[in-house]
Amino acid sequence: MSYGSNELRQAVLRANQVIPETGLAQLTWGNVSGIDRDGGYYLIKPSGVAYADLTAGDLVPVDLATGKVLDGDLRPSVDSESHRAFYLAWPSIGGVTHTHSTNAVAFAQAGLDIPLLGTTHADTFAGPVPVSRGLTAEECATDYELNTGRVLVELIGDDEAAMATPAALVANHGPFTWGVTPGKSVEHGIICEAVAEMALKTLALNPAAAIPDHLAERHFKRKHGPGAYYGNPKP
Amino acid sequence: MSYGSNELRQAVLRANQVIPETGLAQLTWGNVSGIDRDGGYYLIKPSGVAYADLTAGDLVPVDLATGKVLDGDLRPSVDSESHRAFYLAWPSIGGVTHTHSTNAVAFAQAGLDIPLLGTTHADTFAGPVPVSRGLTAEECATDYELNTGRVLVELIGDDEAAMATPAALVANHGPFTWGVTPGKSVEHGIICEAVAEMALKTLALNPAAAIPDHLAERHFKRKHGPGAYYGNPKP
Amino acid sequence: MSYGSNELRQAVLRANQVIPETGLAQLTWGNVSGIDRDGGYYLIKPSGVAYADLTAGDLVPVDLATGKVLDGDLRPSVDSESHRAFYLAWPSIGGVTHTHSTNAVAFAQAGLDIPLLGTTHADTFAGPVPVSRGLTAEECATDYELNTGRVLVELIGDDEAAMATPAALVANHGPFTWGVTPGKSVEHGIICEAVAEMALKTLALNPAAAIPDHLAERHFKRKHGPGAYYGNPKP
Amino acid sequence: MSYGSNELRQAVLRANQVIPETGLAQLTWGNVSGIDRDGGYYLIKPSGVAYADLTAGDLVPVDLATGKVLDGDLRPSVDSESHRAFYLAWPSIGGVTHTHSTNAVAFAQAGLDIPLLGTTHADTFAGPVPVSRGLTAEECATDYELNTGRVLVELIGDDEAAMATPAALVANHGPFTWGVTPGKSVEHGIICEAVAEMALKTLALNPAAAIPDHLAERHFKRKHGPGAYYGNPKP
Repeated sequence: MSYGSNELRQAVLRANQVIPETGLAQLTWGNVSGIDRDGGYYLIKPSGVAYADLTAGDLVPVDLATGKVLDGDLRPSVDSESHRAFYLAWPSIGGVTHTHSTNAVAFAQAGLDIPLLGTTHADTFAGPVPVSRGLTAEECATDYELNTGRVLVELIGDDEAAMATPAALVANHGPFTWGVTPGKSVEHGIICEAVAEMALKTLALNPAAAIPDHLAERHFKRKHGPGAYYGNPKP
Repeated sequence: MSYGSNELRQAVLRANQVIPETGLAQLTWGNVSGIDRDGGYYLIKPSGVAYADLTAGDLVPVDLATGKVLDGDLRPSVDSESHRAFYLAWPSIGGVTHTHSTNAVAFAQAGLDIPLLGTTHADTFAGPVPVSRGLTAEECATDYELNTGRVLVELIGDDEAAMATPAALVANHGPFTWGVTPGKSVEHGIICEAVAEMALKTLALNPAAAIPDHLAERHFKRKHGPGAYYGNPKP
Repeated sequence: MSYGSNELRQAVLRANQVIPETGLAQLTWGNVSGIDRDGGYYLIKPSGVAYADLTAGDLVPVDLATGKVLDGDLRPSVDSESHRAFYLAWPSIGGVTHTHSTNAVAFAQAGLDIPLLGTTHADTFAGPVPVSRGLTAEECATDYELNTGRVLVELIGDDEAAMATPAALVANHGPFTWGVTPGKSVEHGIICEAVAEMALKTLALNPAAAIPDHLAERHFKRKHGPGAYYGNPKP
Repeated sequence: MSYGSNELRQAVLRANQVIPETGLAQLTWGNVSGIDRDGGYYLIKPSGVAYADLTAGDLVPVDLATGKVLDGDLRPSVDSESHRAFYLAWPSIGGVTHTHSTNAVAFAQAGLDIPLLGTTHADTFAGPVPVSRGLTAEECATDYELNTGRVLVELIGDDEAAMATPAALVANHGPFTWGVTPGKSVEHGIICEAVAEMALKTLALNPAAAIPDHLAERHFKRKHGPGAYYGNPKP
């Protein structure tokens, strides 16, 4: 028995490869998954495998209901249970990305939201990229990775909120991003890192920097919702 | 009917490709246009098309007087109306570039001019790269992109001023640069980003940094005006 | 007579090549060695040879007991005696890396430990990457490089401590890292630099940043010790 | 009549190409020259020529005594007279490099020396990389580039001092570096930029950072003077 259409496997593979290509993570830090909602499972990067060696066949199918591996000998990413928490909570999402990208990690380690300071941010994220509370000792001791996902779900809220701001930071850890496809989830990872760097430099220049609400809303709505007018139809 | 000489199409295409090659923007952030003054239209990057996929034939011709697309099925960059405001205001310019380059965006988000602190800056820009006032809620609500361009024209002033400092920052957004050709406009985008990074680091070392007027003027005049003596004639 | 199996020579060569490939050092700054414990010697990069020119045959065999070159005409890295101090003190290590990577050097020059602020750090290093005391004038005057190694051994402690936090900074100099193989030692150099950059940016955002102990321990134990569950067996 | 041996032309060409390859400058910012002491002239990059287009035949021969171009139709770099001031003042130098590398420019714009904070710096530069006084309005008005060179000669001192610290910053401008060959001069440009970045980050972490004299001297003497023991003879 085999899991995952060729199309899904290629999409998840490609999104994983984007991580090292865009400098979002070094070594094996970072992982992308993509879900087959009808099949009730997701495909995720195996743990500790180098991006250069990764093939579509290496992706690990994980049961959405139980978190168990459905096929093969490879272990899934250690962060698999965090991905699962997001897929369970938010039915609209089709892909999840986790990285240790430098500037987003800096905000996570500082315990600070990435503030909404400009249109680069507002084009994609409706509000600040929020940082979670710290996990308790109990949450760290048992089901740590699942609890990590739950803490972000608690932070973000429902499906609509997750689609409006498809990124969040785990305190002292780093960013998770998601989207309707694996490719969109890693694109949101790129944007999360870019706006984190911009925000860090902005705050160095002016700690009181802020954006008017009407400008942020204008940009978000240029790309999202019924009045969106950005982009062209795919050929 | 077709718009744009092969030469103009290639120049606009090439200038757009410089954006990702020099790291001025990620994803599809950024766009360059070039104008045919005799024809009364400009060619601009289509909205949301990846740089790697962009061809000379994809460039969208836009009527200078009305802002309407003259040919083809693709939508122009959402920033098209900002470009149009510059072409209408400043007859000497032949190209316009918009990016979200990191350090220039940091100044834009901080609401600060990029100060003139050294000769790298003075070689190209006669004064600070100024940041605009914020757009009002009314300016955001209707004709937002055209108003964005108008606010920069209000900030910069007349054609002579635009040629002396061919760059400005939209508050909480990012840089626009322009020049006599599309290539020069993106070159000014590179320089704007470079001097923003230098200025940010300079201010971190010495918040009171400043340049004597006589040194800045000497460098600007080395490259511009009747006494210029930089460079060699093109072969 | 020849020193070093082909496997060891290739491992040391490859680990040296990783230094310029990952931007850990420019020019000829940086060196990796690997030890043959049975043979009682280690192979190290020759001094001042460009990475691009380096071959497996250029690696210099050095006697562990005496520090003398065992074969060939090339001088070993000037830091050879520091490497030797680590091999003598810590029997579990198989490779040592020294670089002048920018962010780790910044902490070394600032005289500060790289603080443990997040899980990227905790995944590999059990505690802060500590900075040494300064060498005295006497320690600089005679056996300088051996004393450099000794000061780090004094700082780190025994073999178990060295394996728990396989990295340290020499004050006003830069990082040394080590591991069970040459490849692991340079991987720890990559991680040391990455967490230094993250820490520097974190402290810029929040000078009081800190990580709860239970989160740091959880991450370290995910990858180390009897309960480790990160990664997959090598094929 | 032709100026410059093939060897000198290749060395100057190669050193110029290192500038864009190592990111020391963008566009046409930066230039390297090399001198033929017996011939009484130096070869320098022509003004405003792109590095990618530069050939050995384009290099411009300039008379050491008068600063006049000896051959060809191309203008020399506008900074030619600064190079000439160094060749006249310091008989030991064989090459000069000027760039606008970001971190060194930041110190120049801040009006601050690059402080000697670690061994990376001490390995090459005996003391801080000093920043010049500002040029007066009179010095800017006439013979500006020659005066720029003279101000650095005034700052650095004699030939021995120039060889001990082969780098200096022109206030509000950027770094000049020099060496016994064109290649060494650009290598010193790479090191100047690297130590500037390290120093900027060190000062962000600890504004009171400093290095003990005995450590700095040890490192400088490891590479320079009669007791030097770094490196291997060239094959």
